[in-house]
Amino acid sequence: MPFQSLGDVRAILAKMPGPDATATAAAEARNGQLTKPPGALGRLERVAVWMAGWQGREKPSAAAPQIVIFAGNHGVTAKGVSAFPAEVTAQMVANFAHGGAAINQLAKAFGAKLDVHALELDRPTADFTEAPAMTEAEVVAALRQGFEAVDPGADLFVAGEMGIGNTTAAAAIATALYGGVGWAGRGTGIDDEGLRRKEAAIAAGLERHRAETRDPLQVLRCLGGREIAAMAGAILGARVARVPVILDGFIACAAAAVLQAVTADALDHCIAGHQSAEGAHARLLEKLGKEPLLALGLRLGEGSGAALAIGVVQGAVACHSGMLTFAEAGVAAGA
Amino acid sequence: MPFQSLGDVRAILAKMPGPDATATAAAEARNGQLTKPPGALGRLERVAVWMAGWQGREKPSAAAPQIVIFAGNHGVTAKGVSAFPAEVTAQMVANFAHGGAAINQLAKAFGAKLDVHALELDRPTADFTEAPAMTEAEVVAALRQGFEAVDPGADLFVAGEMGIGNTTAAAAIATALYGGVGWAGRGTGIDDEGLRRKEAAIAAGLERHRAETRDPLQVLRCLGGREIAAMAGAILGARVARVPVILDGFIACAAAAVLQAVTADALDHCIAGHQSAEGAHARLLEKLGKEPLLALGLRLGEGSGAALAIGVVQGAVACHSGMLTFAEAGVAAGA
Repeated sequence: MPFQSLGDVRAILAKMPGPDATATAAAEARNGQLTKPPGALGRLERVAVWMAGWQGREKPSAAAPQIVIFAGNHGVTAKGVSAFPAEVTAQMVANFAHGGAAINQLAKAFGAKLDVHALELDRPTADFTEAPAMTEAEVVAALRQGFEAVDPGADLFVAGEMGIGNTTAAAAIATALYGGVGWAGRGTGIDDEGLRRKEAAIAAGLERHRAETRDPLQVLRCLGGREIAAMAGAILGARVARVPVILDGFIACAAAAVLQAVTADALDHCIAGHQSAEGAHARLLEKLGKEPLLALGLRLGEGSGAALAIGVVQGAVACHSGMLTFAEAGVAAGA
Repeated sequence: MPFQSLGDVRAILAKMPGPDATATAAAEARNGQLTKPPGALGRLERVAVWMAGWQGREKPSAAAPQIVIFAGNHGVTAKGVSAFPAEVTAQMVANFAHGGAAINQLAKAFGAKLDVHALELDRPTADFTEAPAMTEAEVVAALRQGFEAVDPGADLFVAGEMGIGNTTAAAAIATALYGGVGWAGRGTGIDDEGLRRKEAAIAAGLERHRAETRDPLQVLRCLGGREIAAMAGAILGARVARVPVILDGFIACAAAAVLQAVTADALDHCIAGHQSAEGAHARLLEKLGKEPLLALGLRLGEGSGAALAIGVVQGAVACHSGMLTFAEAGVAAGA
């Protein structure tokens, strides 16, 4: 077992591996010799070199991506914060199992392995306006499940989520970590009145847990959800295994933000896949210091934005690892 | 033979097929029933419905993309407008043949067939500052070669280019079609002095051919190049075959702009794949009324930006055609 307590999680966050400097330098050098004008592949070049560093080889691969969807239920749905009933979480998990959801199609399109972890759906977290969402044992169990879900043989990792009510939990986390207002958005499409209920629930949760939420891991425990904790655990597990990660939307980024709030460089192995249409995601990406690869207006969750970005990373890696150098191809380099 | 003269090209442009309204309506209806909140797949939903319309079926495919690279040489390189010597065009064509270029890797990554057409590389177009770049017979031959290069069995098409000096030709075309200044950019990476030579060549070409360039097809003939004419022909050929097209960067869009300048709806079967780092591409996309799927700073040509966007279109089509409906999956629809 990698950890038994939040103290163990802190210990892992305090000594994480970094990228391989030798592989990074070798990939930089290779990039400068490929048959193209310098910089002509734009951001693809930086993505390929970053992949090389984390995979520890001059020519990285992206042929074996893993997508893991974590699902959880939220007590705060009792406050009328979602356009969909809580039963939809379990129904969508069944849809994932039957291959009928968007993420199934995207996983197939980009050759990714897809795993689904349903976290105690019949035992929602507590309504955070009335009590901490999780006990320490519960949040640690969810973090551990995420941590252990990462396949160390994967060459790219995406954590996605399903959980009716979880944009409320994610917005509460962002508010606790960064302060300010306006972190709540429309989620799956709630109306004006629902949005006001959502904002009120977040304000009540922040007020109730004020004493504990100076600690980011306590923010996760008091305001988060099992699937959010599991995503944080998975992102940490990928770091320990040096598997590069594509971050998904608002909820996945809220999970990632907890890690970064503990240790500033905790997300160096992560790239932002897609800027969601969920209102505050752009702002959250700014806080994380991440520029998204895509911005196509998705707001579905399920890891779908990040999964779509797998194709971009595959394109970047294919160019870097497969192109000939000027010398190999007998092409004259530029003036 | 589809055409023998520019008059024949005009005749094709005057009566092109449109999208299938029945398939479009069926795809719209299907999109509304899939297991996701309405609109949650953002732009992917619009892309899938657009693909359905042009392919004439409710569930479109993107499993058989075709990429065609057209290569040509330009007399205007004598004016010192490029950072690379003209020999590089033929050297890169050899690199395409050996599978060593970026486009080879992207074609493989997204399962696209790649064809390369080298258009009389040992016979550059005339220097347009001194004479029309092509005769009518030459421009028609290039248009026809492009038109005939489209595989009617492809379900998605990309036209790309290679041609040292061709950002100068493309900028001259844009200047002739739209007026104004500032259409010239850095191309493969020319310095300040080279950029001034480029701007001077464009001004000289515009001045010399002023009498003829009120007609967009004469703009193509006087200021374009064989690979640019071939791309225009290919985009037109795809339209006649109802194969949807992903437009590439500045040069491909200059070719497309000629068609649109003749017939306003000539590019309805086209989507913009990627906004290039080449300075004026964003402005050209605005003129075309196209919002790019990607903006990752590429400026390579070879169809590379559009090829990268094939992955996005494949993701869109995979979701649309593969997802279950709420009824099929037994999931409750939203409030």
